[in-house]
Amino acid sequence: MAGLSLRRARMIIRKTLDHGKETGMKPLSVIVLDTGGHVQAFERSDGASPGRFQIAYGKAYGAVMLGMAGTAQMQRAEAQAYFIACANGAYQGALIPVPGGVLVRDAKGVLLGAVGVTGDSSDNDAAAAKAGIEAVGLTAEI
Amino acid sequence: MAGLSLRRARMIIRKTLDHGKETGMKPLSVIVLDTGGHVQAFERSDGASPGRFQIAYGKAYGAVMLGMAGTAQMQRAEAQAYFIACANGAYQGALIPVPGGVLVRDAKGVLLGAVGVTGDSSDNDAAAAKAGIEAVGLTAEI
Amino acid sequence: MAGLSLRRARMIIRKTLDHGKETGMKPLSVIVLDTGGHVQAFERSDGASPGRFQIAYGKAYGAVMLGMAGTAQMQRAEAQAYFIACANGAYQGALIPVPGGVLVRDAKGVLLGAVGVTGDSSDNDAAAAKAGIEAVGLTAEI
Amino acid sequence: MAGLSLRRARMIIRKTLDHGKETGMKPLSVIVLDTGGHVQAFERSDGASPGRFQIAYGKAYGAVMLGMAGTAQMQRAEAQAYFIACANGAYQGALIPVPGGVLVRDAKGVLLGAVGVTGDSSDNDAAAAKAGIEAVGLTAEI
Repeated sequence: MAGLSLRRARMIIRKTLDHGKETGMKPLSVIVLDTGGHVQAFERSDGASPGRFQIAYGKAYGAVMLGMAGTAQMQRAEAQAYFIACANGAYQGALIPVPGGVLVRDAKGVLLGAVGVTGDSSDNDAAAAKAGIEAVGLTAEI
Repeated sequence: MAGLSLRRARMIIRKTLDHGKETGMKPLSVIVLDTGGHVQAFERSDGASPGRFQIAYGKAYGAVMLGMAGTAQMQRAEAQAYFIACANGAYQGALIPVPGGVLVRDAKGVLLGAVGVTGDSSDNDAAAAKAGIEAVGLTAEI
Repeated sequence: MAGLSLRRARMIIRKTLDHGKETGMKPLSVIVLDTGGHVQAFERSDGASPGRFQIAYGKAYGAVMLGMAGTAQMQRAEAQAYFIACANGAYQGALIPVPGGVLVRDAKGVLLGAVGVTGDSSDNDAAAAKAGIEAVGLTAEI
Repeated sequence: MAGLSLRRARMIIRKTLDHGKETGMKPLSVIVLDTGGHVQAFERSDGASPGRFQIAYGKAYGAVMLGMAGTAQMQRAEAQAYFIACANGAYQGALIPVPGGVLVRDAKGVLLGAVGVTGDSSDNDAAAAKAGIEAVGLTAEI
């Protein structure tokens, strides 16, 4: 499976959490999925509620499986709610179609995986993911 | 497991049921979950319908997993229905995002668990939970 | 649905927990189900592992649904493993077919519900349930 | 939520992975769960197969929910296969009842969570978890 090394996934998580702290966000949880939608690394900040894994996972999983980042998923959900509801059924209820599910690409546009962030507002979650991805020299599609 | 002792959980349930009776509510059912969302104690009043466990559980479970009491969950559901619908999928359909799922904190704000109440109107359910939690000297976030 | 009053269910739980403490058992968890297999009351002792609800429920639920207490379910599982495996599928994986799922009857043999106990050995779990049921003047079928 | 800080969870994962590398094990994946069985941190080594999250999770989740580490779960499965099969149903198929699911306790025996390791033989997985846990001054129950 193509994708990020664990070393780089770990750095994205660290930088995403740092961004959240530096900008005063609530405690974030961050996941990195590979290009098959499988979990590579995850960290939940102290103070976050216990169910954050499922939310972070759902944001990133939908981004990988549909090839569509969280912002685009949300637009689709608002335009055509039943499509996202049914896609969610097809993916066994895992989707969380809001900002914070972010695709990760290299300089040539090749997909390397997805990052999912949860804990603050959806827009802040997405901004933190973007900061983490760009801190390691990659491109974020939010 | 941090949280309430069984003794205290039992007192919250008793006081919640008493409040319901004294104020003329319909037969209530009351659950106490620990900080991991696991069942510590539950009682269903005589005369309540048989499926009350799942409703009480879903109210309290969502409060623990999302770190958000029932009132806040309902507001989110009204602002962005598909987010709560999808979070529900992520938690395998267990959520009941209306008032009556109440977070329990100590005097310092430390989370000790959640109480779920069902049987009367959602607002009355939440009021009964609040009365039960405050009767044992703790703080309710409805 | 015929069955036990909450008052009596509560007394069975209390007496079952007392029996466990007095005889030096590990921390017990006790559930009471009505004759439809629905939860009426549950308590988890301090110090029990968090997943005890599901085990107590599964023991009592199978007893109600099959009309067969835990000992009989275990005998069937040992004689014909695939039958219990498939019955478990039919009941969505909820069964725990070992002693500790105990049917509750009145003096005339009328079924009033089931008690499920977990925490110590299966045989001790069943003995505690029996003690709790008999303490309120009812008959236990272990 | 009682338990490990993210900082300590991260150190356990790092030390577990180091142990695996130093002793020539196959690429390991390591999860840390809190005392409610919820994911706190996870890392999958480069070269591990994509489905390792579920295996690591299942090992640690069963340890938390049953209060029983992987070795004890395996012994129970060998003595009474249908009990573990049915417990697995009760926990929605998540259990992986073999060594590598390890309980984490402090010096006083207080449970802080569980570590799940997968990638090499079950015994080596458990040994790596033990090394990681002891490297941060805590006690492993394998």
